[in-house]
Amino acid sequence: MKSLFLHGKQVRIEEIPLPTPGGEPRIALRLAGICRTDLELAKGYMGYDGTLGHEFVGTLLDTTGALSAGMRVVGEINCGCGNCNWCHSGLERHCPNRTVLGISGRPGCFAEQLTLPEKNLVPVPDSIPDERAVFAEPLAAVLEIFEQVLVRPMDSMAIIGDGKLGLLAAMVFAQRHTGPVLLIGHHPSKWKSIPEMRCLHENEIGNDLVAQFDMVIEASGTVAGLVCAQRIVRPRGTIVLKSTVERSEPLNLAVSVVNEVTIVGSRCGRLPAAIRFLERTDLPVERLIEATYPLDQAEEAWKHACRAGTLKICLKTKESA
Amino acid sequence: MKSLFLHGKQVRIEEIPLPTPGGEPRIALRLAGICRTDLELAKGYMGYDGTLGHEFVGTLLDTTGALSAGMRVVGEINCGCGNCNWCHSGLERHCPNRTVLGISGRPGCFAEQLTLPEKNLVPVPDSIPDERAVFAEPLAAVLEIFEQVLVRPMDSMAIIGDGKLGLLAAMVFAQRHTGPVLLIGHHPSKWKSIPEMRCLHENEIGNDLVAQFDMVIEASGTVAGLVCAQRIVRPRGTIVLKSTVERSEPLNLAVSVVNEVTIVGSRCGRLPAAIRFLERTDLPVERLIEATYPLDQAEEAWKHACRAGTLKICLKTKESA
Repeated sequence: MKSLFLHGKQVRIEEIPLPTPGGEPRIALRLAGICRTDLELAKGYMGYDGTLGHEFVGTLLDTTGALSAGMRVVGEINCGCGNCNWCHSGLERHCPNRTVLGISGRPGCFAEQLTLPEKNLVPVPDSIPDERAVFAEPLAAVLEIFEQVLVRPMDSMAIIGDGKLGLLAAMVFAQRHTGPVLLIGHHPSKWKSIPEMRCLHENEIGNDLVAQFDMVIEASGTVAGLVCAQRIVRPRGTIVLKSTVERSEPLNLAVSVVNEVTIVGSRCGRLPAAIRFLERTDLPVERLIEATYPLDQAEEAWKHACRAGTLKICLKTKESA
Repeated sequence: MKSLFLHGKQVRIEEIPLPTPGGEPRIALRLAGICRTDLELAKGYMGYDGTLGHEFVGTLLDTTGALSAGMRVVGEINCGCGNCNWCHSGLERHCPNRTVLGISGRPGCFAEQLTLPEKNLVPVPDSIPDERAVFAEPLAAVLEIFEQVLVRPMDSMAIIGDGKLGLLAAMVFAQRHTGPVLLIGHHPSKWKSIPEMRCLHENEIGNDLVAQFDMVIEASGTVAGLVCAQRIVRPRGTIVLKSTVERSEPLNLAVSVVNEVTIVGSRCGRLPAAIRFLERTDLPVERLIEATYPLDQAEEAWKHACRAGTLKICLKTKESA
C-alpha cells in the first residue's frame, strides 16, 4: 500500500506492506491531517523514521469486542504498555514504554491502512462528518488544557500563534469561555476563520497589554512567542506551552521567576472528550482545512503543508468517497 | 555613612548621606547577608545602581505606631504603592510600581542605616539571634514554595544546587517534609551543613533517577540545572525555579511539553512566616555562614562572596556587638 514515509529528513511516498490481519484491529484511512509535529519530525525531532501521521478518521476493517467492522473511528495515538501505574491510571499517554502513532515506535496514519489497539479506538457518531472528525486529535490536545489548569470563567486569555493549533484553541475558547479572549498572530488572512474573535498582529502588542492576561496559551512554537507570553501574562499568571520544537534557542526565564509565573507543558488529550465536544457543539473546525489531496499526491500535500502560513492540509482516500 | 555601592558593574565602599529623620522609619544595620541576586545585579541584572543588599537584621531607630525604637527587626524588601489590587490583596511583592530594597528604586541594606515603610517591618523575638534572623528573607523565599505549590507529604523531592538557597531549601525540607529528599550539587564540602540529607554530585545522576521525582527545585541558577530538572522530574511533575540570572541561554522546553511538566517561577515570600519558622524550629541556618566581615571591609567580603562555591558571607556593624 502507499504511505508517506520519513527517511532521515526525506519525506516521500513509499510502497509498504499492508498490515497483517489477526493482529491489532486494522483501519482503512478515510481522511488524515498534517500537523506541525509532523513537520518537526522531518526536521529531526524525536529521531523518528517511518510512516508519518497521527490525525485521522478511518473505517474499522475488523470487528472487535465492542466495535463492528464498517464503523468510522478516530484513535488515541499513545499506546501504553498496559502494565504500569500510568496505564492503570488512564494516563497511557505518559507510559514510559509507550509507542505513539507516526511519532515513536509505531507506523503512522498517512497510509491506506493503519492499526491501533482496540482500546485506543473511539467511534465517530454519524452526525460528525469526516472533515470535522479528523480534528479529534488536535481538539483533544486543546481540551487537555482544561484537564491541567483551572480556567476561571472570567479569566482574560491570550492565544499566541495563528497556526492550526492556535486557531483551533481560539475557536474552542470563543465557544466555551466567558471571559475576554485575544488571538495574537502573524497572518491576518487566517483570522477570518474565527470572525467573532479579537485578533492582533504580534507587532501591535503595546505596553497597554503588558501583564494583562491571567492565562496565555503559547501555540506559535517559537521562542519569540514565549517571550511575548512572558511579557503579557500577569504576575502569578499561567502560560500554557502547546508546541514541541526540536531546537534549543536562547531564552531567559528570569522574568517568570520574578513574576512567579507558572508555565505548564501540555500535550495530547482524551479523544472521547473531543468527539463529544464535536457532537455537542457546532465548532466550525472544518473551516481550518485549506486543501485536501488524494493520498497518492501526498508529496504535493506535504510541500503545501511546509509553506509558511498554511492552514490544515488533509489527505483523503477512496474510502471517504 | 559607609555603604557598599554598585556603579554600573563596579562595587565599592562609598560614603553616602545618612537617611533623613522624619521619613520612613530608620534602621541601624546589625547583620546583613550577601545573596546570589546581589552578584547578578553586579553583572547587570535589573540595571540597578545604588547601595546593594536586601538580607538584614537591624535595630529600629524610630518609634513607629506599633514598634518601639530599639527593637530588632527584619524587613519585607518589596515596597508596593499601597493603592493597587496587588497591594490590597497582600501581594505588594507583585505591585507593578514597587520599589525593592537594594534591587530596584530603593537603596539597600549594605550601609550603616537603611529605611523601610513601617508596614514592612517584622520584629525579631529575643530567642532568635542575629545569625539566624539574617536568614529571614531567603527563608521566606523558600517557604514561598508552599504558598504556590501543593507539596504532598510523601512527594519525592530533589533540590538542584548546593548554593546558599539550595542548602537552605534542603534544610527546610529535611525539617518539615516526610517524603524522600535528594540534594544535587557540585560541592561535597558544603553538604556537611545538612548531614541528615542524601546528597549526590550532578555527575552521578544516572538513568535510574530519570523521571523519578514528583517535584524538583531548581536553585542552581544555571541552564544545566534546568536541563537536569527536566530529566529527573516525572511526567506531570513540577519544577520550581528559584533563581534569577541575567543572561539568556539555549534551552529546549520540548521535553516539558511532552511530559506535561509544570514549571513554577518562585521569588520572595512572607517575612512573618520565616520569623515564625525560625522561632518554632531549630533550623540550623547559622551553619550556612562562611565568614562575617565588618561593614568597613565590605569590599573584601564582596570579593569573598564572588568566589565559586562560597557559602553565606555576612556584613556586621558595631550595632550587633
